[in-house]
Amino acid sequence: MITVIALNPALDITHRVPGVDWSGVNRPSDVLARPGGKGLNVARTLRVVSADVRVLGLAGGATGESVRSALASLGVPATFLPISGETRRTFAVVDSRTGATGLFNEPGPAVRGEEYERFLVSYRKALDGCSAVVLSGSLPPGLPPDAYAQLTAAAAAADVPVVLDAHGEALLHAAAARPAIVKPNLAELEALAGRRLSTAAGPDRRAVAEAAHQLRAAGAGAVVVSLGAHGLQAVTGEGCWRAAPPAEVTGNPTGAGDAVAAGLVRGLVLGHPWDERLRHAVALGTASAAAPAAGEFSEDHYRELLSAVRVHRDGAVR
Amino acid sequence: MITVIALNPALDITHRVPGVDWSGVNRPSDVLARPGGKGLNVARTLRVVSADVRVLGLAGGATGESVRSALASLGVPATFLPISGETRRTFAVVDSRTGATGLFNEPGPAVRGEEYERFLVSYRKALDGCSAVVLSGSLPPGLPPDAYAQLTAAAAAADVPVVLDAHGEALLHAAAARPAIVKPNLAELEALAGRRLSTAAGPDRRAVAEAAHQLRAAGAGAVVVSLGAHGLQAVTGEGCWRAAPPAEVTGNPTGAGDAVAAGLVRGLVLGHPWDERLRHAVALGTASAAAPAAGEFSEDHYRELLSAVRVHRDGAVR
Repeated sequence: MITVIALNPALDITHRVPGVDWSGVNRPSDVLARPGGKGLNVARTLRVVSADVRVLGLAGGATGESVRSALASLGVPATFLPISGETRRTFAVVDSRTGATGLFNEPGPAVRGEEYERFLVSYRKALDGCSAVVLSGSLPPGLPPDAYAQLTAAAAAADVPVVLDAHGEALLHAAAARPAIVKPNLAELEALAGRRLSTAAGPDRRAVAEAAHQLRAAGAGAVVVSLGAHGLQAVTGEGCWRAAPPAEVTGNPTGAGDAVAAGLVRGLVLGHPWDERLRHAVALGTASAAAPAAGEFSEDHYRELLSAVRVHRDGAVR
Repeated sequence: MITVIALNPALDITHRVPGVDWSGVNRPSDVLARPGGKGLNVARTLRVVSADVRVLGLAGGATGESVRSALASLGVPATFLPISGETRRTFAVVDSRTGATGLFNEPGPAVRGEEYERFLVSYRKALDGCSAVVLSGSLPPGLPPDAYAQLTAAAAAADVPVVLDAHGEALLHAAAARPAIVKPNLAELEALAGRRLSTAAGPDRRAVAEAAHQLRAAGAGAVVVSLGAHGLQAVTGEGCWRAAPPAEVTGNPTGAGDAVAAGLVRGLVLGHPWDERLRHAVALGTASAAAPAAGEFSEDHYRELLSAVRVHRDGAVR
């Protein structure tokens, strides 16, 4: 059983409009409302690839109720502890003629101290019988910046590996608590390293590897950096790898990083070797980026991509 | 007691963003969620000007629940009969640097025949003791195009005057059922007349009056045409009027027409003469257009405008 933590879930609303008038009235040809936020995206992807997954999170208000019922209708088991604030929405406006997508992310509701305490009680119970924990996404207002560090430490104490997808202070704190895998994207790794890790030509592979090694030295078991269309670069205790999709895709990249995290945790609990983990993670991320709705993907496309993803061991650095 | 009918209410969500990136990720500085749709805008305006008002409508799903609770917190008494579909959202993105506003209006949920039948039973009961009915906004999918005609006829049979703000087929059908006042805007009147009623310089006042006379001939007691920044032009059984704000305002014009309808129905139930009705209607509409959030207004600005609105009797036509 993989437990996915969703402290700041969202209702992701996507409007498709043929030829958007950005300063006028538009009637979307298509409206989608889906449970979202990084944690729920990971959980939905895991559900589609038949992993044994459940969600533990926080939700409030009518939007929280929408998230609850939408997730239930997708067959993802979930427990959301109630909070007094209202769960946030995200809006994506997709111009179906040009493909341009405007994203509008509401801030999350503030979580009260006693609400987080109740969550911690449920979290500690959930660790029992759990094969891995996924901690993903921004912390909602009101939580301490080391909340993911606390959750990681509690999992480590229960011998449950953690896959962590966070950034900034939350990532830095939590890395020291020894998560099994951290998955920053290039911009997040650059912010942590305090320097550019790419050139106009693309990611600077040596610089990415160095920053990833530093993050491992800070406590992370493995560091997998997502590089958008350039795929993944991994620095692990068993070696370094690069994995890339066969070609760039167009679609909705929102949720692609979450599909990558889902691929990584699935490979972890199945005990797959790193090259296989990365192959699945890149295929899932690419299939997700190619789909029009945030955080969804075609299973056929995923399977097709599996044989096309290029993975190679990276001997050049250290 | 004024009864406002809301067959297709909405949750109006407004995001204010300083400098929108229409093809990137935006974090709104401010998020507002308000009960909306034309009927609820009218009811909220009536509530602010202390009119005795209640809402009778249809609502469904979590978004319907949000509308219900938000309206209750504004102190507007309402009965929403449940429907199986999910109440719609509208989404407005306001660039707080440029003032540009993109509006995205979801389609309404389909209403089932038996749901509308239950509504009709409640509607007929509500007519008892009612001083006026407001029928405003588009009909949701599933309702017959003459639904407003049926509701108007039932009100007329109970001797309750109707203020109707609809367009196209719904307006044409309902006009024949003898509403007291219809309030098309210029574009709606043009669509009905099948010809342009304006030039580059603004509304063609003679052409507007002619089209309004035709609509009176079709059955409407009075026709008040809203002309945006040009104010109102009225053709009634007691004469013709024009009323205009002192100057154009910038803000969010969504809901301004509904504030006009609120002013008209309030003047009707108070037995005000037409020049007073139009003065209040223009002041409410202009104050609403000047406010940043759809369908809200500053009461101080409204009162200030009352003395500045220019109203004059229009003797030139017929």
